Amino acid sequence: MSASELPHPRPFTLTDEVRAQLGGASTATLASQLQRRGIRSTFLSGLRPTRPGTRLLGYAFTLRYVPMREDLQARLGGGVNAQRRAVEGIGPEEVLVIEARGEPDAGTIGDIFTLRALRRGAAGVITDGALRDTPAIRALDLPVYHRSSHAATLSRLHLPLDVQVPVACAGVTVLPGDVLVGDDEGVVVVPAELVAEVAADSARQELEEAFALERVDAGESSIGVFPLSKDRHAEFEAWLAVRQRGG
Amino acid sequence: MSASELPHPRPFTLTDEVRAQLGGASTATLASQLQRRGIRSTFLSGLRPTRPGTRLLGYAFTLRYVPMREDLQARLGGGVNAQRRAVEGIGPEEVLVIEARGEPDAGTIGDIFTLRALRRGAAGVITDGALRDTPAIRALDLPVYHRSSHAATLSRLHLPLDVQVPVACAGVTVLPGDVLVGDDEGVVVVPAELVAEVAADSARQELEEAFALERVDAGESSIGVFPLSKDRHAEFEAWLAVRQRGG
Amino acid sequence: MSASELPHPRPFTLTDEVRAQLGGASTATLASQLQRRGIRSTFLSGLRPTRPGTRLLGYAFTLRYVPMREDLQARLGGGVNAQRRAVEGIGPEEVLVIEARGEPDAGTIGDIFTLRALRRGAAGVITDGALRDTPAIRALDLPVYHRSSHAATLSRLHLPLDVQVPVACAGVTVLPGDVLVGDDEGVVVVPAELVAEVAADSARQELEEAFALERVDAGESSIGVFPLSKDRHAEFEAWLAVRQRGG
Amino acid sequence: MSASELPHPRPFTLTDEVRAQLGGASTATLASQLQRRGIRSTFLSGLRPTRPGTRLLGYAFTLRYVPMREDLQARLGGGVNAQRRAVEGIGPEEVLVIEARGEPDAGTIGDIFTLRALRRGAAGVITDGALRDTPAIRALDLPVYHRSSHAATLSRLHLPLDVQVPVACAGVTVLPGDVLVGDDEGVVVVPAELVAEVAADSARQELEEAFALERVDAGESSIGVFPLSKDRHAEFEAWLAVRQRGG
Amino acid sequence: MSASELPHPRPFTLTDEVRAQLGGASTATLASQLQRRGIRSTFLSGLRPTRPGTRLLGYAFTLRYVPMREDLQARLGGGVNAQRRAVEGIGPEEVLVIEARGEPDAGTIGDIFTLRALRRGAAGVITDGALRDTPAIRALDLPVYHRSSHAATLSRLHLPLDVQVPVACAGVTVLPGDVLVGDDEGVVVVPAELVAEVAADSARQELEEAFALERVDAGESSIGVFPLSKDRHAEFEAWLAVRQRGG
Amino acid sequence: MSASELPHPRPFTLTDEVRAQLGGASTATLASQLQRRGIRSTFLSGLRPTRPGTRLLGYAFTLRYVPMREDLQARLGGGVNAQRRAVEGIGPEEVLVIEARGEPDAGTIGDIFTLRALRRGAAGVITDGALRDTPAIRALDLPVYHRSSHAATLSRLHLPLDVQVPVACAGVTVLPGDVLVGDDEGVVVVPAELVAEVAADSARQELEEAFALERVDAGESSIGVFPLSKDRHAEFEAWLAVRQRGG
Repeated sequence: MSASELPHPRPFTLTDEVRAQLGGASTATLASQLQRRGIRSTFLSGLRPTRPGTRLLGYAFTLRYVPMREDLQARLGGGVNAQRRAVEGIGPEEVLVIEARGEPDAGTIGDIFTLRALRRGAAGVITDGALRDTPAIRALDLPVYHRSSHAATLSRLHLPLDVQVPVACAGVTVLPGDVLVGDDEGVVVVPAELVAEVAADSARQELEEAFALERVDAGESSIGVFPLSKDRHAEFEAWLAVRQRGG
Repeated sequence: MSASELPHPRPFTLTDEVRAQLGGASTATLASQLQRRGIRSTFLSGLRPTRPGTRLLGYAFTLRYVPMREDLQARLGGGVNAQRRAVEGIGPEEVLVIEARGEPDAGTIGDIFTLRALRRGAAGVITDGALRDTPAIRALDLPVYHRSSHAATLSRLHLPLDVQVPVACAGVTVLPGDVLVGDDEGVVVVPAELVAEVAADSARQELEEAFALERVDAGESSIGVFPLSKDRHAEFEAWLAVRQRGG
Repeated sequence: MSASELPHPRPFTLTDEVRAQLGGASTATLASQLQRRGIRSTFLSGLRPTRPGTRLLGYAFTLRYVPMREDLQARLGGGVNAQRRAVEGIGPEEVLVIEARGEPDAGTIGDIFTLRALRRGAAGVITDGALRDTPAIRALDLPVYHRSSHAATLSRLHLPLDVQVPVACAGVTVLPGDVLVGDDEGVVVVPAELVAEVAADSARQELEEAFALERVDAGESSIGVFPLSKDRHAEFEAWLAVRQRGG
Repeated sequence: MSASELPHPRPFTLTDEVRAQLGGASTATLASQLQRRGIRSTFLSGLRPTRPGTRLLGYAFTLRYVPMREDLQARLGGGVNAQRRAVEGIGPEEVLVIEARGEPDAGTIGDIFTLRALRRGAAGVITDGALRDTPAIRALDLPVYHRSSHAATLSRLHLPLDVQVPVACAGVTVLPGDVLVGDDEGVVVVPAELVAEVAADSARQELEEAFALERVDAGESSIGVFPLSKDRHAEFEAWLAVRQRGG
Repeated sequence: MSASELPHPRPFTLTDEVRAQLGGASTATLASQLQRRGIRSTFLSGLRPTRPGTRLLGYAFTLRYVPMREDLQARLGGGVNAQRRAVEGIGPEEVLVIEARGEPDAGTIGDIFTLRALRRGAAGVITDGALRDTPAIRALDLPVYHRSSHAATLSRLHLPLDVQVPVACAGVTVLPGDVLVGDDEGVVVVPAELVAEVAADSARQELEEAFALERVDAGESSIGVFPLSKDRHAEFEAWLAVRQRGG
Repeated sequence: MSASELPHPRPFTLTDEVRAQLGGASTATLASQLQRRGIRSTFLSGLRPTRPGTRLLGYAFTLRYVPMREDLQARLGGGVNAQRRAVEGIGPEEVLVIEARGEPDAGTIGDIFTLRALRRGAAGVITDGALRDTPAIRALDLPVYHRSSHAATLSRLHLPLDVQVPVACAGVTVLPGDVLVGDDEGVVVVPAELVAEVAADSARQELEEAFALERVDAGESSIGVFPLSKDRHAEFEAWLAVRQRGG
């Protein structure tokens, strides 16, 4: 079993420029850019990071759990099941995204499998269920987002069904190859087809907000600077020029 | 688009005998038979029937929804989407089972599509989301189970993703071709591989419980008759012989 | 095992007069009388009756379930467990009150045990968990209130622990021997020590409300008649005198 | 205190034509018309009717409750409080809409006040909290929608704050004078400014769906008739002409 | 738009003495003092601080959101909407209190508006919905309490309706001008009319509890010192005299 | 009132060896050992520690709360009530386990009583309700797990009923004398009868997992080392021998 046996779709490939743009954008900025494009549900709801202060960036590599059905366990959940295929198949810069139906009361991944994913180059783990071995996972140098912590193994409630299919995680649909960006607020899914434009526009928006924050911090009203009004545009451009020369 | 284009797996084919056995068994009896075999989650939780007094029996034909993502709608949710493929592809004796993540606040199927499924021979509809046009659906001669009613169309929250894949519906994993049995209590999934034995054992259990009810109704203690103790076995067999001759 | 082996406390014994008073009072009136005495939580929240139109009246006979722990099952949950002791020990005019932690996803009592309780003279069954065999239980001539219906047996989630101890059912503390009154709205617990005065005051309140309804139905303002103001008191007494003469 | 002392805004006045259009439209049709106009949240979530089979139509007359604060009760919640002002101030064809924060565990209105509203000409009552005296309210000839039933009086959890202000009821914002339409599925709010066009378009949509249902009932595919394709348009118009002549 | 255009009611004005009393009292002590006065719901439920270790003290300045209704957005939610009026109108020592119906899945305020409020002298921000830009807000020197974090802008779910009206926030009614006190446990609302007496009594209670803690820490039973019994009163007074001399 | 007046059952007494084994095992390992023995619900769901990094180990000492009923308060909840009996009766190495029905909105224990329990030798406090005085309790050198924080005193919602009876805490049944083990993930209940074997097997499992982690950390596949396959057994034993000599 190797990574090459599983599909690793890349509708979009991250460039250094896009990495820099996404790395400098907050999830709040990204989500608002996606909302402007009419996409309402992109922020994974109710998850928390194990390592505040660490950012996440990578391609979605998905894993779908369904409710445990003991008669299917031998066929689908035992031996080299979908969970195993995922952690042994995930590749560099990929983020493992687990659909666990928001179920808080059984582990969905533990420390050994998380470490294995990390050693294979994974860029993060996201589950809308529980982590197991949370303290040990927190010690790993890997951004991990989860809904809860629970010591029971997944067979208490889950059956690993499939890898690299579309999943519903924390209220958001994630496709293999979508780009995930995380900060301390949480994680946003950027649809692969939109990454380039959303990254560029987000970088621009971050600059406008930096300008607005500076003006508001100096005591100005938020009106006119957030959002930026037409008559303040020249001022912003001047500020931007100084910043990009000096900053 | 026709039924033949979609898979209609039949790991088990219902015979008249099995139909009779399942038709005479309560979902409570079926669920307890499955629990005895170590399968804990077979009863769909929190659903209600539109037509109390009607029983449901048929093969699972599945439909999976994920959270709406407007950028995917053209590709996955528009035109002849998965919902359409389902209602135009379902066949006789099949029950449409919709995974809607238990989301109560958007319709998952309305009256026209439900009628279409019925006219194609469908044996029922089950959704763990909302019905739309509930009053009109209730008027159809079809057993339908749902979690809630909501007037909004599915695009408010859902994206139809796929048909005839395993689904998680109301807390239970359902595979295409599994057998579904419903009464006023709700719906039980009988794994295809176990239908024959579960149907037979359930029929036997129903007889034992009928005997127990008769004895308890007559004023006897429940001890010894429920469950049936060894020393009452001969009495039960005698009762059964009379019943099967006369009844 | 007989009823006499279990405690059947009767801090208050229902008389025909009190039965008549309670039988004519709505649970809304009873709850408001208890609120006036500073007792805020007496109405069992979120339960529904199997037989709308039937009233419930009787003494609490309690049964406590705790979460299943398989290592304890032999000691506490198997054989003649607490559930069995309850249905074989309940006596006339007693209402079985089951604490099931509001857990909707496993049966707490089925048709045979409910029938047994009825044959022993029970006046009703209340559970804040699920009924099993709901259709068969609905057919019995017994008021039953429950939170949900579920086909699985109790061992899926529950361990019967004890009988005739204080229980927390649907958000309300119930002691053995407390009086329970139910109508289509739900069930109110009347503390044994307060039954006499609450019954009498409720009967009076029902008359005042009948007067208010009559006046409002005739087109009068609610002000002055609900609640009854001092200056309308004589009028009410006259109305009452006529009513009690004539009926 | 009289109706004239309170504002009764009428941004739109119902005509007989609009009444007929709305009276013939399902809430599902109305909600879909509003969704097409970009208004996503118009169906009140999770409410049930006391009188299935009865339709509701009228202008919103709103009442807002906030959490009980005993120190404010004398000032805001006692005597002629907002609840009293509402039931004594509501006028003909108005529907009382109560914001109770979805709180299921205390009554928000009882039988006497509901009867008073009815006698003043009210066209319905909607609460996203509990009814009190549900059995008596069910007996009134008035459409009432509620989330739950609870015997406790409102002072257990609520403080009546204000009347005829915008409210959030069952997840939907309702303004005084908005039009409410209810059927067995639930209730939709039609913004006053949009009533005329939504009513007309809904009436048309109902006809198209009647045609689609007739074709599907006859065994046709749903494709082409739902939604109506261009090439079936002439056929529909012919059908419509016959229906409107004869029907 | 300036602060003077909005009402800034001050039924009670904080003095240095009261500030000191409230600053030294835990929310637990304040809530218990309010419970003794019969006011049961004063602690905002389910909120967490962005800056543990920081205390909050100020006057309530309220902002009410209702569910998004796109037809109203131009009228109520666009341009200089209620949110903007709030952050541009809030004044020194005021705490912005946002009613967001406990909805976790859309931001209610972001970093720029929070900074603007801070620069206008605001003493804190409280929302029973989500923060946006949580990491940036956490970096501000301002106590902020929230239910969740979410990257989406408020228009996903909310419509800013009004400022300086009574609000229901996290289960508690808050009036403009009420006093808010927060510590790491959460936030308590002290009704303006009761601030003086509650502050004084809380300061006293804190001393009694310090005495109790000291005695219990030394190994004594809690009986007699918590609550303080009559016969230990002289001892407490002596302890207090020493403490107040020495400090 | 002294500890000796209450039962302190010890079906199992911790030895130094078992203490060491349990002290080195994660709750994840313990829960998986209990799952292997067929015991599915042993991890307390949804609780968080006040002092991350501290472990908990001790015998369960239980306290049961039921919903407040003001008429019972004098009899059961006032004076030297069950809460007081618990904190004055708890003994060395015992962990106070409070059943509070998962109710988040009222304190179940505050700082003075927690300190008293600590001074009596208690090894921890666990509540599935709220802490009061959370900041002060966090400062104590005692592992404490709780569901929420709330400033109100327990009489807002709870009535202390009994001590040293079986309780349902955070979804798990706990008997007096059961052994509790906690780490940053949460708390596991080890049934007294199983402590010895579970402790020993967990210690062994921790070693196998340490080996697996080391191999996976070095870049190996998880297959064969987790779980340990037969053909890797000798290698593990060799690794273990080195470790136990050296480490």
